Amino acid sequence: MAKDKAPRRPRAETPKGFRDYFGADVTERKAMLDAVAEVYHRYGFDPLETSAVETVEALGKFLPDVDRPNDGVFGWQDEDGDWLALRYDLTAPLARVAAQFRNDLPSPYRRYAMGPVWRNEKPGPGRFRQFYQCDADTVGAASVAADAEICAMLSDALEVVGIPRGDYIVRVNNRKVLNGVMEVAGVLDPSDPAKFESERGIVLRAIDKLDRLGEAGVRALLGAGRRDESGDFTKGAGLSDEQAEVVMGFMAAGRETGAATVARLRELVTGSALGAEGVQELETIAALLDAQGYGADRVVVDPSVVRGLGYYTGPVFEAELTFEILDDKGRKRQFGSVAGGGRYDDLVKRFTGQAVPATGVSIGVDRLLAALRAKGRAGQQAQGPVVVTVMDRDRMADYMAMVGELRRAGLRAELYLGNPKNFGNQLKYADARNSPVAVIQGSDEAVRGVVVLKDLVLGAKIAAGASLEEWKSRPAQVEVARGGLVAAVKDMLS
Amino acid sequence: MAKDKAPRRPRAETPKGFRDYFGADVTERKAMLDAVAEVYHRYGFDPLETSAVETVEALGKFLPDVDRPNDGVFGWQDEDGDWLALRYDLTAPLARVAAQFRNDLPSPYRRYAMGPVWRNEKPGPGRFRQFYQCDADTVGAASVAADAEICAMLSDALEVVGIPRGDYIVRVNNRKVLNGVMEVAGVLDPSDPAKFESERGIVLRAIDKLDRLGEAGVRALLGAGRRDESGDFTKGAGLSDEQAEVVMGFMAAGRETGAATVARLRELVTGSALGAEGVQELETIAALLDAQGYGADRVVVDPSVVRGLGYYTGPVFEAELTFEILDDKGRKRQFGSVAGGGRYDDLVKRFTGQAVPATGVSIGVDRLLAALRAKGRAGQQAQGPVVVTVMDRDRMADYMAMVGELRRAGLRAELYLGNPKNFGNQLKYADARNSPVAVIQGSDEAVRGVVVLKDLVLGAKIAAGASLEEWKSRPAQVEVARGGLVAAVKDMLS
Repeated sequence: MAKDKAPRRPRAETPKGFRDYFGADVTERKAMLDAVAEVYHRYGFDPLETSAVETVEALGKFLPDVDRPNDGVFGWQDEDGDWLALRYDLTAPLARVAAQFRNDLPSPYRRYAMGPVWRNEKPGPGRFRQFYQCDADTVGAASVAADAEICAMLSDALEVVGIPRGDYIVRVNNRKVLNGVMEVAGVLDPSDPAKFESERGIVLRAIDKLDRLGEAGVRALLGAGRRDESGDFTKGAGLSDEQAEVVMGFMAAGRETGAATVARLRELVTGSALGAEGVQELETIAALLDAQGYGADRVVVDPSVVRGLGYYTGPVFEAELTFEILDDKGRKRQFGSVAGGGRYDDLVKRFTGQAVPATGVSIGVDRLLAALRAKGRAGQQAQGPVVVTVMDRDRMADYMAMVGELRRAGLRAELYLGNPKNFGNQLKYADARNSPVAVIQGSDEAVRGVVVLKDLVLGAKIAAGASLEEWKSRPAQVEVARGGLVAAVKDMLS
Repeated sequence: MAKDKAPRRPRAETPKGFRDYFGADVTERKAMLDAVAEVYHRYGFDPLETSAVETVEALGKFLPDVDRPNDGVFGWQDEDGDWLALRYDLTAPLARVAAQFRNDLPSPYRRYAMGPVWRNEKPGPGRFRQFYQCDADTVGAASVAADAEICAMLSDALEVVGIPRGDYIVRVNNRKVLNGVMEVAGVLDPSDPAKFESERGIVLRAIDKLDRLGEAGVRALLGAGRRDESGDFTKGAGLSDEQAEVVMGFMAAGRETGAATVARLRELVTGSALGAEGVQELETIAALLDAQGYGADRVVVDPSVVRGLGYYTGPVFEAELTFEILDDKGRKRQFGSVAGGGRYDDLVKRFTGQAVPATGVSIGVDRLLAALRAKGRAGQQAQGPVVVTVMDRDRMADYMAMVGELRRAGLRAELYLGNPKNFGNQLKYADARNSPVAVIQGSDEAVRGVVVLKDLVLGAKIAAGASLEEWKSRPAQVEVARGGLVAAVKDMLS
């Protein structure tokens, strides 16, 4: 029915998969990241803030043989024909920076970065196309001391934001050990790394599913294959029972102490030089952490940590929260992983041709924030501002003077700036703001040089059924001299 | 010469017009914005963080009659055919939020927002395509008390970040007064607002150029037109001398006191109802600020403030830094504007059809940071971390224990993680890190249970020619017991 000429009103909506963050959502995340940054700073890491936009070329996200960015990034072509895209993580920009500024940056270069990244993926419940990452990486350090440092720092960061010791564990493994096991099992030939690649892929995915499929399921995947309840068949790696035994033994290599686990792993990789190297690295990391007081209550060697299949080249680590929460169906389960990382030695090489050793960790910002809320360390409703109400619109200057005094005293305070005609609306506003105190001064009070303070916290309690005694002993409304406004508000807030 | 098959290495470069921020660039901006946020919080403003990506429709950036985003934004089409774009400011997303959540947000809604925005414009020296904005706005408050509050808050924010009173001034004007003057001058007909629109545009641009062109230049532009030194001719507004006199009088209406300026403005708009309303608003704002103690040393009524030609509908304000700096050519000039804003009552209407009054301010983050650096309030080289060097790579655990102790004592400390072979490189690294103290322990010192501390600050002074007395009284290198490491480092740092 609308006329052709009537311009259609734009929809007031975020694009699909994007969202807004209000008030405490912003401040709680900020407080958490500030605390993490403080730890990173103490460890000598410097902040780096790259721009949101990179060339697709630098991100390495071109479709093979096609002059168009790969799915997964938001990309567009600029006037000069260059393809640009929003960064999808904080590691690719770091690799670009490490290459671009290699002559200016200290080496090793410790940097942290916090900020949004963008993924052009199907959004889903709780899955957004923009989200925060919080990374710390050391570029240019080949020593596993750098990996150990990252594990210690991760442990400190978790405690600083409010995850108590005992409620988390940092698990460390090494991809070289895993490859050593593959070699022993006969699915990795060091002289021909490409051989058995698809088998190894199946083995890795099987290991990663131990939690979900149990031992029998994993054994099936290592062997001929597995048919699930729905009847779907997943092809197996085709390992013999003997070969599968080696892999299963690896997953079960965890022992009471790090030293015992390491000893068991050393047995398992006997005959593989790479595996021996990986075990040695794990042992060194454990020793270095021990020397700093990071014992098995905080960091453990755990052979079941696999992480990012193609990416890592040495130590890998993962921080898991071990306390239980209730899932959507009311069942208890462990909170699970909130951070992970490892050594990736080939990222800078893309740009310069020179291999640069690097290791780092990424904290899942939303996951960790959810954990803090689950632990009651965040998410409490914050107290709102004191609200100075407007009884007489000709005396705005008087009310503004009050709010100014309160602010100068360091109190969070607001003047009601809506239409003051309906006083009930002002109290509703104070309620919506979660205000603890409303300040009221009608003309009568003005003449008498007083103000009325309404204790909205107590008022809410009374409304919710506080006892008469409480009501009597502490009235929800007091009249004080105008000159005593700030002191009386402070008193009511305390 | 390269083989066809050799993949070309990606260039390690930011896209044109984008840049990286390292270390102090990040922390100084953050410290400044944290301080500003603290003030905004005290005033009852809540943080809002919208996503970087909006629909082009919500931004209102479609090319007329073309199904493609306008120049000025970075835009792309998603799989569903919707056009998305990076936000170009923080006001358009606020308008979208205010419309989308109008039933949930408190009304009035005070919010602040800080974050990057993107402009698809030609980059130039110091002009980037991604930069920070820092905005505070009140949506849903028709009262000019909201404008007065923003001016007071802006004043507080400038002082809190380190601009002393006397080094800045917040200037306030009102677009209604300007329109009243236009009416009196005969270039605005309230019954036909479209009439004389081009003339008014020329008048506004002329006023805005008073600083640069002087009175004679502006008069020329108000009249027949102006030929500049290069011979180029700019068409004038075609005002008669009498009409031009009214406009010139407006620009010269500033008086010693706000009251006198307001009185003069009232004379100038005699006969214009809109102008009288604007003068009344200015008077009210000045009175409200006065009641809170914001006198003419901080906020003044200034008829020369024009700002954003089409956008504002009532009060406009601008914060100017009044101290002098040297420009590129070594000439003294005032630092100039670092923040501005005003009332814009029609932004939400685009979405809902309902006019929603709004007013706000935007701080030029990079400008203000530059001002703080010019005043020596930022930009000093920060002290780097204590560096624990590695003399003996078999004793990494010992060194790591040292660095761990230092960190637990709250000191910023690093272990050297590069190749330790060349000790000179380690000291060069400490130097590049601006480290105040290097910790050294060779096998000899380890056996004797001591460590050597090298005072790199003093060392640098000696190298730069400190007196022999200073050198003697405070040796640049001390040996201390291993157990006294932390205390001795703290002592050296103090």
